[in-house]
Amino acid sequence: MAAPATRFAVNGYKGRMGQAVIKVLDETKHTMSAKYEKGDMFDLTRTDAVIDFSTPEASLSLLEACAGEGLARPRPLVHVIGSTGFTPEQRDELIRFADEVVIIQSGNFSLGVNLLMGLLKQAAARLAAEDWDIEIVEAHHRRKVDAPSGTALMLGEAAAYGRNVRLDEVKVAARDGITGARRAGDIGFSVIRGGGIVGEHSAVLASEDEILTLSHSARDRTLFARGAIQAALWGRTQKAGFYDMQDVLGL
Amino acid sequence: MAAPATRFAVNGYKGRMGQAVIKVLDETKHTMSAKYEKGDMFDLTRTDAVIDFSTPEASLSLLEACAGEGLARPRPLVHVIGSTGFTPEQRDELIRFADEVVIIQSGNFSLGVNLLMGLLKQAAARLAAEDWDIEIVEAHHRRKVDAPSGTALMLGEAAAYGRNVRLDEVKVAARDGITGARRAGDIGFSVIRGGGIVGEHSAVLASEDEILTLSHSARDRTLFARGAIQAALWGRTQKAGFYDMQDVLGL
Amino acid sequence: MAAPATRFAVNGYKGRMGQAVIKVLDETKHTMSAKYEKGDMFDLTRTDAVIDFSTPEASLSLLEACAGEGLARPRPLVHVIGSTGFTPEQRDELIRFADEVVIIQSGNFSLGVNLLMGLLKQAAARLAAEDWDIEIVEAHHRRKVDAPSGTALMLGEAAAYGRNVRLDEVKVAARDGITGARRAGDIGFSVIRGGGIVGEHSAVLASEDEILTLSHSARDRTLFARGAIQAALWGRTQKAGFYDMQDVLGL
Amino acid sequence: MAAPATRFAVNGYKGRMGQAVIKVLDETKHTMSAKYEKGDMFDLTRTDAVIDFSTPEASLSLLEACAGEGLARPRPLVHVIGSTGFTPEQRDELIRFADEVVIIQSGNFSLGVNLLMGLLKQAAARLAAEDWDIEIVEAHHRRKVDAPSGTALMLGEAAAYGRNVRLDEVKVAARDGITGARRAGDIGFSVIRGGGIVGEHSAVLASEDEILTLSHSARDRTLFARGAIQAALWGRTQKAGFYDMQDVLGL
Repeated sequence: MAAPATRFAVNGYKGRMGQAVIKVLDETKHTMSAKYEKGDMFDLTRTDAVIDFSTPEASLSLLEACAGEGLARPRPLVHVIGSTGFTPEQRDELIRFADEVVIIQSGNFSLGVNLLMGLLKQAAARLAAEDWDIEIVEAHHRRKVDAPSGTALMLGEAAAYGRNVRLDEVKVAARDGITGARRAGDIGFSVIRGGGIVGEHSAVLASEDEILTLSHSARDRTLFARGAIQAALWGRTQKAGFYDMQDVLGL
Repeated sequence: MAAPATRFAVNGYKGRMGQAVIKVLDETKHTMSAKYEKGDMFDLTRTDAVIDFSTPEASLSLLEACAGEGLARPRPLVHVIGSTGFTPEQRDELIRFADEVVIIQSGNFSLGVNLLMGLLKQAAARLAAEDWDIEIVEAHHRRKVDAPSGTALMLGEAAAYGRNVRLDEVKVAARDGITGARRAGDIGFSVIRGGGIVGEHSAVLASEDEILTLSHSARDRTLFARGAIQAALWGRTQKAGFYDMQDVLGL
Repeated sequence: MAAPATRFAVNGYKGRMGQAVIKVLDETKHTMSAKYEKGDMFDLTRTDAVIDFSTPEASLSLLEACAGEGLARPRPLVHVIGSTGFTPEQRDELIRFADEVVIIQSGNFSLGVNLLMGLLKQAAARLAAEDWDIEIVEAHHRRKVDAPSGTALMLGEAAAYGRNVRLDEVKVAARDGITGARRAGDIGFSVIRGGGIVGEHSAVLASEDEILTLSHSARDRTLFARGAIQAALWGRTQKAGFYDMQDVLGL
Repeated sequence: MAAPATRFAVNGYKGRMGQAVIKVLDETKHTMSAKYEKGDMFDLTRTDAVIDFSTPEASLSLLEACAGEGLARPRPLVHVIGSTGFTPEQRDELIRFADEVVIIQSGNFSLGVNLLMGLLKQAAARLAAEDWDIEIVEAHHRRKVDAPSGTALMLGEAAAYGRNVRLDEVKVAARDGITGARRAGDIGFSVIRGGGIVGEHSAVLASEDEILTLSHSARDRTLFARGAIQAALWGRTQKAGFYDMQDVLGL
């Protein structure tokens, strides 16, 4: 017997990513059971998976509403979260729900970026921090309200992991004025905003005489919508827990 | 009768640019009459032209010493200034000396960058600010202590000039945290530091669907030393005044 | 009294650009009177302007059909041609029709690329050919069947014009094997094909120590559709003749 | 007891790379025992290691001269070969000498490029050939006589290896004219020549909606000289055999 079709809800449906998700769900003949925007009441009884590009607050509200329902289901709800900007406290709260929900959170749902993270980890591990400086550069459209992007921070985390340091100890987020010389081991971020740029990310590894650059360019945001839907379908086969896109892609 | 050879002094000779100037003067068989570092006494009696990549303070001290000498010369002293970071007050002071000295100041002595400034002015003038966002991106070696670079600021000035606005009213120097959406008309700067990068500059003009990028990459700093020497030789044929590299190149 | 609405026909409507034109005409509430694909009979009696991204042969067939109709109209037909790959003979044939039709032909209907052409002309004129080498690099999607792109050739023409030479005398279209050293004054082309890339073009101007790069990236092909429609509307106000996108944009 | 100092000979010493090797040997206080150019007689009796950026013919001649001497040495001669353009036959001949000589051959002696090869292998293995197109782009100075560069071919080999195909079956070396659509699985090469560019290489992996780019930029050719000397010193501790830079770097 065929598996029953997954019924999708969309949280944050008025945003650009929400609209892209709705468009792709429609094109791929998936069932959409509900859509929510800030202030709406959640009813998740007829929903198997939520695709959620909203805000940390809205994502947590949805999970709380879900917990209120008791969460008694034959298979756990899947909650794919692309909202960015969670504080450490909000993230802790998120993780609490992973006992009962399949939570898949990522700053970026594209195959290319997730592969890039793995390559950067290795490069950072192989290239000595005293000789090679790492910088993360990102560019996004003019409507983006936060900086650096969640993906840029993920890349910074990957580089820090490769070097066996904590990102918050080496992160340099913006340079302006008399900065002094660059400190060996720092990981710098720079941020470009303009036009309709969907999302560009580069990791620059520069030594005295050579520069290695690992870059990704997203050309259409339906890319991320398709990745999030792919994540949800994968999540339907998993136990409750906290996952990221690396798990989904088996990287 | 051949013109008498130009005798060069170098101010800030211990820095990377000072060393490059000395190397190029030597390779091109020019006469070096003196070299100065912070704290040295200036004696400019046997000098026709000074190449000066030091600091605003050291550049102004040299001009004051020069004024103390009376500046009575058959032809005015030429003072090529590549020091960056002058405050508006320091710049006013500089201009006072231009009554008696040929001052040529630039944030960048390369032909390519100076041509780029002209192209950017035009592009900024043609592309409507409500549709096209301008961003200046620069990358330099890890030893650079200030940000954005003088050249990046020059490019920002060129773009602002093309749009008929003042840079200080539209300049966004660093983005970090919740920045809100980009304001139409702003000119953003971002700064990359790493390895031995001599100097990379890009002006990015991004609309909803297309991106125009005008970039310059300097591959050897002797490039700037040669440009500064070329400027000094040009200055020897000029009256006292305040010039920039656009004047030297006739752009 | 308001001008009567322009009625559009689309030639080559099954292609990717034809589809984009139909989509934009629909979104912008323009009237579409007819659409043609290879082998169709043309009937242009209820058409004011044709948007034509087909082939040189199909574009010429349409003009011949049009001539057969006598072309007696209150205002001349507008024929916007984005087909590429015309031979010199086909181009001569095209020009013959410009006595009675407003023909607007371009390899690229974007504002950014047309501005880039003007900037490149100037850069090529200012940078001495013995010191600065010019290379045109382009990237397009995997379905593109010709190389270099029409836009790359336009950029090559612009550079050659700036240097006061003929492109066919300096064009180097592909390098493979033992090529010998680069000849001063040559203009080289290189071609990248992959994925869904809409269109990237760069003009690289490289001297011994510095590199100036002028680049354009198109992110959505509706960009070209909108430019072609804009050209058609402009053409409605013109006399019969042969025009390009520089005329339309007043560059 | 300290190991006796390695005595270096330089083959192809008049070339740009040969000159860079001599400069770095001098700066690093290494002993240079001999230098050779085309037509010179080889005498390798007082030489422990040869650094050889010449031609396939000159590299093979040196090995033959060496064999003529009997090669009876306490430790085998080290022959670091950066000459490019070996035919398959010449390469077979080379390998014959590896019974008695430590041969280390590479198209590129930089750490960055060799790391890039490893990353590209992985990326090519993870990204399905039907969805992702691979292109190798390289840029070098105007004096380079062959195309694509040895390093570009190495990167192509790495990508082909990752995909488990033979490069010669999928290599597309230059595109000009009516090429037809790109064939899935092909690996394309494009070549830029201009100015003094030391060496730029990019591997572009493009799908319908995203582009992953892995790039390397060499900024000073002493980089390669230092890598070749490092390889020679490593080779002094090895048995006779045929090695590449991946072996030297332990990648």
